[in-house]
Amino acid sequence: MKISARNQIAGTVLSVTKGATTSHVKLKLTGGETITASITNEAVDELGLKEGMKATAIVKASDVMIGVG
Amino acid sequence: MKISARNQIAGTVLSVTKGATTSHVKLKLTGGETITASITNEAVDELGLKEGMKATAIVKASDVMIGVG
Amino acid sequence: MKISARNQIAGTVLSVTKGATTSHVKLKLTGGETITASITNEAVDELGLKEGMKATAIVKASDVMIGVG
Amino acid sequence: MKISARNQIAGTVLSVTKGATTSHVKLKLTGGETITASITNEAVDELGLKEGMKATAIVKASDVMIGVG
Amino acid sequence: MKISARNQIAGTVLSVTKGATTSHVKLKLTGGETITASITNEAVDELGLKEGMKATAIVKASDVMIGVG
Amino acid sequence: MKISARNQIAGTVLSVTKGATTSHVKLKLTGGETITASITNEAVDELGLKEGMKATAIVKASDVMIGVG
Repeated sequence: MKISARNQIAGTVLSVTKGATTSHVKLKLTGGETITASITNEAVDELGLKEGMKATAIVKASDVMIGVG
Repeated sequence: MKISARNQIAGTVLSVTKGATTSHVKLKLTGGETITASITNEAVDELGLKEGMKATAIVKASDVMIGVG
Repeated sequence: MKISARNQIAGTVLSVTKGATTSHVKLKLTGGETITASITNEAVDELGLKEGMKATAIVKASDVMIGVG
Repeated sequence: MKISARNQIAGTVLSVTKGATTSHVKLKLTGGETITASITNEAVDELGLKEGMKATAIVKASDVMIGVG
Repeated sequence: MKISARNQIAGTVLSVTKGATTSHVKLKLTGGETITASITNEAVDELGLKEGMKATAIVKASDVMIGVG
Repeated sequence: MKISARNQIAGTVLSVTKGATTSHVKLKLTGGETITASITNEAVDELGLKEGMKATAIVKASDVMIGVG
């Protein structure tokens, strides 16, 4: 499926930390940065997310802020 | 100011496209990826955003989705 | 690509209204409801969105509120 | 209260899963689709959300993405 | 309608600035602060938003970040 | 760091409620209103958030809805 979100950045799963309903998934981006996603445990299970897997960080443009200085 | 958003990624402004009220700002991240932010024209003016400027892409973890395959 | 967003609802494009940088896309869901998305003009062009096309409305669970009464 | 969010879709509560601070609420929409919301436990208690209750899924247009193919 | 969003803050409309598809609405909160909302022109028209009107700023808890220093 | 988010409102931490991965932080705004943020436990620890601390509630304009009546 091709999606409208402007930001789709390739990476590798560094870690998956499951909470009661919400998981934190850290990806290492190809460029070396780390990005953290907060998604449902259900999604983690459905996607079978595990350390070392190839994955894409997806962010809508309207959810990105800019900082300077 | 130190902020709670988990994702703060350094980059350089590639382009600023102003609409009637909303601007699209593209950053080249240090790792080479491009990220697009949709912010208000007011914010662009206040931050004085211009091509070539150092800037940080800021995204809350709860706004990041994960894709696989 | 399989994505973590919990809400992926099939529909058909009813209309695409382009602004200076932001477009409003209305989908008729299979169940008959209408859903409105605010996405970038760039995304509309890249996805080639036109009236009558099959498309999916995608929403992260953390972006859904509940109302009662 | 009348609100600006473009998407307000009627449904019935299918399930409420409480975590430590965050709950996942699934609604069956009138059209038959299921939608998942991630809201605070506090909100679940305040709205008295229970299986079988009539409820509305509320989503801002800027939080809806579009997928094709 | 009672909604799950944790943040519902009373105020008065200071200004409405319409773009091609998106409007910026500024509210003066009872406490004196100003808050800016980016909503669709359609919503502005439907709610009949005008300077001086009583209105409520509504924000989901998952969309609020915290800054210190 | 100066950021693009239009809404940056000063307040004081009222309470911090930690879940398994997600915390709810309530601030009392200078104007007397209370605002709730849902952020990661990691962010709470990194910012050292405690009751009584000065802190700022940060919200992107595109995450603010308006209600009337």
